Amino acid sequence: MHKANKGKLSTESKVKVRNAKDLSLAYSPGVAEPCKEIHDRKETVYDYTMKGNMVAVVSNGSAVLGLGNIGPEAALPVMEGKAVLFKNFSGVDSFPICLESHDTEAIVQTVKMLEPTFGGVNLEDIAAPDCFVIEERLKKETSIPIFHDDQHGTAIVTVAGLINALKLSGKSFSDIKVVANGAGAAGIAIIKLLYNFGVRDIIMCDSKGAIFEGRPYGMNEVKDEVAKMTNKDKQEGDLEDMLADADVFIGVSVGGLLSKEMVQKMNDDPIIFAMANPDPEILPGDAKEVGVKVIGTGRSDFPNQVNNVLAFPGIFRGALDVRATRINERMKIAAAEAIASLITEDELNEDYVIPAPFDPRVAPLVASSVARAAMESGVARIDVDPEEVAEKTRKLTRIDEDY
Amino acid sequence: MHKANKGKLSTESKVKVRNAKDLSLAYSPGVAEPCKEIHDRKETVYDYTMKGNMVAVVSNGSAVLGLGNIGPEAALPVMEGKAVLFKNFSGVDSFPICLESHDTEAIVQTVKMLEPTFGGVNLEDIAAPDCFVIEERLKKETSIPIFHDDQHGTAIVTVAGLINALKLSGKSFSDIKVVANGAGAAGIAIIKLLYNFGVRDIIMCDSKGAIFEGRPYGMNEVKDEVAKMTNKDKQEGDLEDMLADADVFIGVSVGGLLSKEMVQKMNDDPIIFAMANPDPEILPGDAKEVGVKVIGTGRSDFPNQVNNVLAFPGIFRGALDVRATRINERMKIAAAEAIASLITEDELNEDYVIPAPFDPRVAPLVASSVARAAMESGVARIDVDPEEVAEKTRKLTRIDEDY
Repeated sequence: MHKANKGKLSTESKVKVRNAKDLSLAYSPGVAEPCKEIHDRKETVYDYTMKGNMVAVVSNGSAVLGLGNIGPEAALPVMEGKAVLFKNFSGVDSFPICLESHDTEAIVQTVKMLEPTFGGVNLEDIAAPDCFVIEERLKKETSIPIFHDDQHGTAIVTVAGLINALKLSGKSFSDIKVVANGAGAAGIAIIKLLYNFGVRDIIMCDSKGAIFEGRPYGMNEVKDEVAKMTNKDKQEGDLEDMLADADVFIGVSVGGLLSKEMVQKMNDDPIIFAMANPDPEILPGDAKEVGVKVIGTGRSDFPNQVNNVLAFPGIFRGALDVRATRINERMKIAAAEAIASLITEDELNEDYVIPAPFDPRVAPLVASSVARAAMESGVARIDVDPEEVAEKTRKLTRIDEDY
Repeated sequence: MHKANKGKLSTESKVKVRNAKDLSLAYSPGVAEPCKEIHDRKETVYDYTMKGNMVAVVSNGSAVLGLGNIGPEAALPVMEGKAVLFKNFSGVDSFPICLESHDTEAIVQTVKMLEPTFGGVNLEDIAAPDCFVIEERLKKETSIPIFHDDQHGTAIVTVAGLINALKLSGKSFSDIKVVANGAGAAGIAIIKLLYNFGVRDIIMCDSKGAIFEGRPYGMNEVKDEVAKMTNKDKQEGDLEDMLADADVFIGVSVGGLLSKEMVQKMNDDPIIFAMANPDPEILPGDAKEVGVKVIGTGRSDFPNQVNNVLAFPGIFRGALDVRATRINERMKIAAAEAIASLITEDELNEDYVIPAPFDPRVAPLVASSVARAAMESGVARIDVDPEEVAEKTRKLTRIDEDY
């Protein structure tokens, strides 16, 4: 698949240029007209160019899948794959930008220089903590959506699953205790999004145990921030200690790390998202043996797959269609709620809290919900009808109906 | 045309990803295989990714068409147009990179960081003298072809026309006196390419008159270099003085600047390429009245149009197909000779020294000639059969047969 056509992505001409007349319109001298328009009113760049439908998929190849720091060339197949998913799931054009750099400042400056060309930026497979710095800087210093999918895509789909799992266990966000293991990009984004959903009893563990404010070892700027939102009693201890009376375990750490014994310390009807790849923190069969109510993983061969493809195509579709200046918390919350809402009360069960990755209803609903949230929260440059965004997305989605 | 589809360029998926099986191959976990291959042997990036067919069309919008410094957003319609021409004329994928910067160093560093993603770089509409510095630096500091089309594309097509015009006037490169007016990007590249074709009697004029070594006014690094190749007698004077006994006038300057009286000072059967846009330095009708043998312009409504589209699609097709590390003088010479050779001795006449822009034979012949020259001059990473390059280009060209 990757070799047959030399990669997976090409560029395509939306107009025909087959004779002298076409050429005089598409290029010199005709092209001068849109150039002059944009020079006079910069915002018309969204009308006359590809910018409004074009996302940069930016990576330096420093944390690619489970492969680690394999560099920008070796990351290119993943970024092309991502671009293919954008196109097939929601008609978003996107282009891999694989950068030869491990210098955070240089990456920030480069993406800023690229801003005129793109309507949004999807950061991908950049190692922590650089990914946090790069995203924060770019959010402040550009006026297009910046979205680190490894963080927020995973967080949105996980929280969507949790919304539905909580319905099954009759608990609510404000009452639950959540323990997360793994202070990487995804873990920290999940904690933040849970906080924005009203969860107040959260403990995050890293390889050194529970994180708390002022912990004298193994901290960094991002963990300091996490500590402010979590572990109010400043409990010290390892993951097993923390799991006592927990309602939810979120694993973005190491395969096989969660034993049955550890699960048994949790509250009744525990909920687990074990997203280590390819081996989850605990296998669904083992979890069920010790009373786990709902378990989701990153794997397609188990129920409740946490797959980012449920989120990013619709999120960017919605953000682009309102020419959003950013992707804010309201939009992420809207995306999670949209994904969760596709499973009706009748359909909802322990093995079906997250829609299938190829459910064709997902991207249209996420897109329209995100567009609406962007308008309501004041980050949309234009107003659109969310139903039209959904309808357009439906037409652009090219996935099999019989998934 | 520019507004109907919001721009002219999209990205396209070369593979289908419509169900879970496709997804597991195109993306995680299947995509890990090509990633690992490339990590082990970096050159396989040409086998497994889009890199080998992907050109960056890089501009900062500082010298766009005749519009000047209109900025990167306003330049985007031109760069999309360029990408569309690449695709339609020779099947080369290319992508606009419009940079928000007037800092030469920052542009160089950015393009260097982008090198993993692209098989070549077409610099476009960047103002002199920055364009010279950027091109030289990138040629030294990257190992992919760097080609400033405003310089070399124009030079190659002009020289192709001159090859044929000289046949009609019975003169040869080594005997002629050439006067060029306009020391911008194109003018200087034409002078250099003429020098490489054996022309030794060249005078270049700028707005201050003839350039000569050590001229105490209006010089810069590039003009110093020009001065070393031209005006050996260090003549001082204006354009009109220099035109005495000239065989060829090359205008890349200002419309209407060349009067009939000035032409009458030239040698018998003068040849003129008057490429100021949209108004040439002298109109063909006026030139013919005072005995000009051949005149070419930049305009499609006069004979002998100097149109870069005759060069860049085939040049990059040939360079990419041998995975060239650069585009060197041998390859430029081969391209000019290929373009000229398409007009047979029988067909050749004063109004037909340059093939039509939509002649479908051009890109295939340029591509195969450039590929051959790259292999012969040692800048090809792989060997290919030039005939196969031509055949492939023929299949990829999508222009009307009845141009």
